[in-house]
Amino acid sequence: MAVTFQVLHRDEQARTGLLATAHGPVETPVFMPVGTQATVKGLTPVMLRDVGAQIILGNTYHLALRPGDDLVAELGGLHRFMGWDRPILTDSGGFQVFSLATQVKITDQGAKFRSHIDGSPLELTPERAVEIQQNLGSDIAMVLDQCPPGDAGPDVIRAAVHRSVRWAERCRTHHTRADQLLFAIVQGGTNLALREECARELVAMDFPGYALGGFSVGEGPDAMHAALPACAALLPEHKPRYLMGVGRPEDLLAGVAAGVDMFDCVMPTRNGRNALAFTDSGPLRLRNACHRRDPAPVESGCPCYCCATFSRAYLHHLFAADEMLGPTLLSLHNVAFYLRLMAAARRAVAEGQFAAFRADRLARWEPHS
Amino acid sequence: MAVTFQVLHRDEQARTGLLATAHGPVETPVFMPVGTQATVKGLTPVMLRDVGAQIILGNTYHLALRPGDDLVAELGGLHRFMGWDRPILTDSGGFQVFSLATQVKITDQGAKFRSHIDGSPLELTPERAVEIQQNLGSDIAMVLDQCPPGDAGPDVIRAAVHRSVRWAERCRTHHTRADQLLFAIVQGGTNLALREECARELVAMDFPGYALGGFSVGEGPDAMHAALPACAALLPEHKPRYLMGVGRPEDLLAGVAAGVDMFDCVMPTRNGRNALAFTDSGPLRLRNACHRRDPAPVESGCPCYCCATFSRAYLHHLFAADEMLGPTLLSLHNVAFYLRLMAAARRAVAEGQFAAFRADRLARWEPHS
Repeated sequence: MAVTFQVLHRDEQARTGLLATAHGPVETPVFMPVGTQATVKGLTPVMLRDVGAQIILGNTYHLALRPGDDLVAELGGLHRFMGWDRPILTDSGGFQVFSLATQVKITDQGAKFRSHIDGSPLELTPERAVEIQQNLGSDIAMVLDQCPPGDAGPDVIRAAVHRSVRWAERCRTHHTRADQLLFAIVQGGTNLALREECARELVAMDFPGYALGGFSVGEGPDAMHAALPACAALLPEHKPRYLMGVGRPEDLLAGVAAGVDMFDCVMPTRNGRNALAFTDSGPLRLRNACHRRDPAPVESGCPCYCCATFSRAYLHHLFAADEMLGPTLLSLHNVAFYLRLMAAARRAVAEGQFAAFRADRLARWEPHS
Repeated sequence: MAVTFQVLHRDEQARTGLLATAHGPVETPVFMPVGTQATVKGLTPVMLRDVGAQIILGNTYHLALRPGDDLVAELGGLHRFMGWDRPILTDSGGFQVFSLATQVKITDQGAKFRSHIDGSPLELTPERAVEIQQNLGSDIAMVLDQCPPGDAGPDVIRAAVHRSVRWAERCRTHHTRADQLLFAIVQGGTNLALREECARELVAMDFPGYALGGFSVGEGPDAMHAALPACAALLPEHKPRYLMGVGRPEDLLAGVAAGVDMFDCVMPTRNGRNALAFTDSGPLRLRNACHRRDPAPVESGCPCYCCATFSRAYLHHLFAADEMLGPTLLSLHNVAFYLRLMAAARRAVAEGQFAAFRADRLARWEPHS
């Protein structure tokens, strides 16, 4: 297998890297905006390019249900379907089956469940998860795993780890697309011994990349921040490391410090739709009356279209008047904020200044969080 | 007063022209997308520029209620507030008072009513309508008029005409902004004698532009098409003529044929939000199952971002999945369609081919309408 990931700089555990994909290279650490249903909610592909998105995420569960992976394949794949010509990562669908579907029954064969859209009976097996993602044609596919709830007992977590390892093997066997990287997912909850066992077995299978799963449903940010360094250290040094579904800006910095390379989260777009902006001085609630007459941009110095063009007063008005443009503009700003944060983190790592950079950002956000 | 309107070409009653405003020239005949609440729903100013919008409309009633014209003035005027540096026309607010507000009481003094947002008691007089629009800083303001319902009796229409003429005079007296054109509005319903009387009195006051009101609430398209030539002929040849709140593509062509220069309507954006596309081969309902697997663009040959990038299948998916991007993209296409239609109409008039052009378009749309 060709080299797909190259570490460029190291600063303690943090690193920068370059990940090669069929749709071009990705500079890491990287944040991936989430395009659940073949669209990053409210944003056009041009807007995403303009704020520097390098790679976005699509959700296998949603896309398999609607419009259907066969339809996407027939129309030339997910990139062409959604008008995005840069890299795409798809998840396996497992996480959504466990969180959105109804009447879920899990066996070693896979998961049987009913669609949250129309109740129709469906099945997701490791082989089907790979088939869907091969139909979608993402640059990076994920193995099907079983992600137990954050409060699950040790026996449940252990069983899920063992099943996830067997499913990863089946995914690997079934996977054939040479232009698609298949990443494995390490589960194990807060049990480091289980995480270690899971990682050891998956690393032996030599996947081109590894993810840490289960942290977005875990015991909270403090526990995650404490566990991340040890968990990231279980993953191969020369493979990309992806922390799934995380998180807040401070969580991304904790991940980078631990040596994580890739992140995704719905927070920038979901919060944007709810009138909450991320800024370098902490969060801003645009619905608050204090912004009604405020001529300042959402974030001074932010080069995004929202901040370069509009005032907080205008954003406040758009949300008060329930105008679509409010969610669009604030989602754009929030994605721009996350991408700028990662670009700044890459520069800090390259300059050997990441610890100081992180401390400075956390101090700026502190009084507001 | 400096010359603000110049007729460039004539083709029977149709004409092309150039309208000078404080924010630059407008080529006529022109369609003005409607930005009711300081935003053309779902579209950014950049998107509007990209599809060639020359001038947009803002609604005085909505903006006076929320965010308030004093606030807009304090923030530098409507252009700066909404990030749009090309011309803006504002209506007088009268039409919305009569159609949206509750407990409306009209006297010669003005209209007393309650806000449709919070029920607060408000008053709109001719002087206040001018004050609001001067605060907003639009390039073109409209006089306050009384627009009676389409089915009103002759006495009601006559009284509304006489009141509208008196209100126009008061607006003219109160208006002071040298960088804003104030247009008068001819009412009179389907009664040509009343329209003639109204026009005669208003023309004597020498406004820089004249509108035909009441057609968007009139007796339907056929009656409007029949009445338009005579009504447009009542207006001065060397002043811009504006047909308010109209309409469908075929109505715009009827207006151009009658010598109308300016149009506005919510149809392109409202229909776009409802998954209905305008095309040169007639309307397209993107929710229909026949578009589910269709790789064709919404309209072949349309240079707009929606058509250049996405398939009907993708639009169908966005609407099925209730994704914001569907309304945005289809509003963009529909506005692009209206603007291209007016650009083609201007070329046809300049070449003396407008009648043939109109017949050709109507024939193309006919089987689908």
